[in-house]
Amino acid sequence: MSILGAYEALAKSGISPSANIKFFFEGEEEVSSPHLKEFLDANSDLLQADLWIICDGPRDVFGRKMAVFGVRGDVGMGLTVYGPKRPLHSGHYGNWAPNPAWLLVDLLASMKGLDGHVLINGFYDDVQPLGRAEKDALAAIPNPDSILQGELGIAQPEVSGRSLFESLQLPSLNIKGIQSANIGPIAANVIPVSAKAALDLRLVVGNDSHRQVEKVLEHIRSQGFTVIDHEPTDAERSQIARLIRVDIGSGYNAQRTSLDLPEAKAVAKAIQATTPEPVILLPSMGASLPLIVIERTLGTKIITVPIANYDDNQHAENENLKVQYLWDGIETYAALMTMAW
Amino acid sequence: MSILGAYEALAKSGISPSANIKFFFEGEEEVSSPHLKEFLDANSDLLQADLWIICDGPRDVFGRKMAVFGVRGDVGMGLTVYGPKRPLHSGHYGNWAPNPAWLLVDLLASMKGLDGHVLINGFYDDVQPLGRAEKDALAAIPNPDSILQGELGIAQPEVSGRSLFESLQLPSLNIKGIQSANIGPIAANVIPVSAKAALDLRLVVGNDSHRQVEKVLEHIRSQGFTVIDHEPTDAERSQIARLIRVDIGSGYNAQRTSLDLPEAKAVAKAIQATTPEPVILLPSMGASLPLIVIERTLGTKIITVPIANYDDNQHAENENLKVQYLWDGIETYAALMTMAW
Repeated sequence: MSILGAYEALAKSGISPSANIKFFFEGEEEVSSPHLKEFLDANSDLLQADLWIICDGPRDVFGRKMAVFGVRGDVGMGLTVYGPKRPLHSGHYGNWAPNPAWLLVDLLASMKGLDGHVLINGFYDDVQPLGRAEKDALAAIPNPDSILQGELGIAQPEVSGRSLFESLQLPSLNIKGIQSANIGPIAANVIPVSAKAALDLRLVVGNDSHRQVEKVLEHIRSQGFTVIDHEPTDAERSQIARLIRVDIGSGYNAQRTSLDLPEAKAVAKAIQATTPEPVILLPSMGASLPLIVIERTLGTKIITVPIANYDDNQHAENENLKVQYLWDGIETYAALMTMAW
Repeated sequence: MSILGAYEALAKSGISPSANIKFFFEGEEEVSSPHLKEFLDANSDLLQADLWIICDGPRDVFGRKMAVFGVRGDVGMGLTVYGPKRPLHSGHYGNWAPNPAWLLVDLLASMKGLDGHVLINGFYDDVQPLGRAEKDALAAIPNPDSILQGELGIAQPEVSGRSLFESLQLPSLNIKGIQSANIGPIAANVIPVSAKAALDLRLVVGNDSHRQVEKVLEHIRSQGFTVIDHEPTDAERSQIARLIRVDIGSGYNAQRTSLDLPEAKAVAKAIQATTPEPVILLPSMGASLPLIVIERTLGTKIITVPIANYDDNQHAENENLKVQYLWDGIETYAALMTMAW
C-alpha cells in the first residue's frame, strides 16, 4: 500500500519517476514461493530491470530508515521419531517401552551446545566472509541488544558476547516447534507413539540449502538413526530401534548485493534525503526471501528497503503495522521512484 | 460391573459369601484421588476389614488370570522453560534470542542416558530389594517381551537385556508429553515463548514421592536452572538466563503386600480354582494406585485382582474391554467372595 500510495501521490502531483517502474506482487512468499521460478521464467522479458527494490522486513529498533543488501536463505526440516505402535500406559510399560520423546530430545540436544554453537559437523564451514564495505557498515550500526533484551525479557543472548547483527551473518539452526502427546491438564500417563520437531535452517552466502540439509542428515545418522521419508512399515519398526522420518522442505539460498555498487549508493542517498537520522545500511537481514531466485533467473540486482516497525509481531499473534511507518513508507518509496542514478 | 455381577449371581443362586463383604467404589483415581484420605479418615470404623481386594489393571499378555501384590507409586511434574516474552521471527532473531525448546531438550537429555538409565543423582538409591518369595514369583512368570515387541513394533526395549517385569520393579522417569509452538503444516518460523514438558515418575517400595521429586529438582538446579513455582516476573526474566517453572503434582508412594501372608495364599488358591492355566502372582504391577493410603489409614492388607485385557488401550483412544474378560471377572470375583480362609 505504501508503494501504490507513493506512485499515486507522484502522479497526482505531476512528478515523473526517474525510471520506468514495474510492480511485482508475490503472494506466496510465506509458503516458500512455489511458483516464483516458473513465473519468472515465463515472463523474463517483461520482468527485465536494472534494479529490483523489495519492500519487506522491519526497520531497526531505534526506528531509523534502512536499506538491506542481503537476506539469509531458508530451508525447513520436519523430524518424526517413533515409539510403540499404540499409546502405552506409562505405569504398565514405563521403563521398558522406548519413549520417542526421550529419543528426540537426545537427538536435538546433540545438535547444539549449551554455549549456543551448532555441533553438527561442518555447519559453519561454507560461510563466505563479509567484505570490507560490509564489515564497516555492520560496525556503524548502533547496537540494539540491550534495548531488545530489556523489552523481550532476555537475560543473555544465545551465544554470550555475540551481538544480534553479528549473529544474523551466520547460519542458524532453530527449533520452531516440538510436540509429543500432551502437556498440562490434558497430559495423560502414556508413553507417546511419536515425537515430532520442526526445524528451521537459515543460510548465509556460501551455504547451499541441499548441502546444509545433508550435514544435518549426516549428523542424525551419526547418532544411530536410520532416516526414512515415509511412515515406517511394521517390518521397519520391528527391526530398527532408532527410526526417524525426515521431511525436507523446499528451500533456497541466501543472496547478497555488494555495498560498493553505484545502485547501492544511489538507494542509500535517496532514503537519506527523507530523514534527518542516519540511514542504516545492513549487509544482510536475518530473515529470508527468495531473492536469489530473482537474481539468478533474471540476472538483475536487488536491494531491500523495509518499512515495517521492528516490533510488528511478524509470524505471530497480534501482527501489526504502526500507521507512522506506513506513512514513512510512502515518503521513502516516492523518494526511490524519483531518485537520481 | 464384574464385582456386582458376581455378588448378584451368588445371591440369586442362594450361595452365601465366606466373609462379610463391603463394596468401595473410588471415582477420582484418575485425578490422583484427592479426597480418598479424607473419606477413609471420616469412615474408618465403617471401612475396617481383614483384607481389601482391588479390581483394577490388566491380566497378562497370555490371558492368564493374575493376583498382584503391589503397585508403583506415582507423582507428576510439569516443566516450563521460558524464551522471549513474545514470539520472535526466527529469521530476524534466530541465533541470537535464546530458544526455550533448545534449553528444554538439553535439560531433558541430561536426565536419561542413551542406555535408558536415569542419570539423576541417587535416582535408584532408595529401592528396597524384593524378598525371596517375590523373586521366585517373578522368575515363574512367562516372559511376554517378544510377543509385546512384535505387537507394538518395538525393535528393542529401552534398556537392552532388561525384561518388562524386571523393569517394572524399578522407579521410572517418563516424558508423557512435550510441547513448544507448533509442528507440521502449522509450524511457523518463530522462536517460541516457552517450551513445556510433563513428566511422570513411578515409584517403588523404598522411594518417597517428595524425596524423588527433590532429586529431580536438584538435578535441574545442577544444570544451571533457577526453579520457580509461578510465571516469571519481568525482573526475573531480565536477570536470570535459565528460568524454569516446576509444577509438582500430588503424588503417593508404592505399596507391596508380602506373598508369604495366609491371605495371599488364599486369594491365589481361589483364583486358581476358576482356571486350568497357572495363575500369575505378580509382586508389583507397573501402574499406580493409592493403595498405600488405604493400607496406612486403615491398617489393613491389600491384594489386587485385575480382570481387564492387557491390550485395553488404557488412558488412550479406543480404550476397550473384551467381553470374555468381563465374564471371567464375574467368575473370579464370585470365587473370591466364597473363598476358604
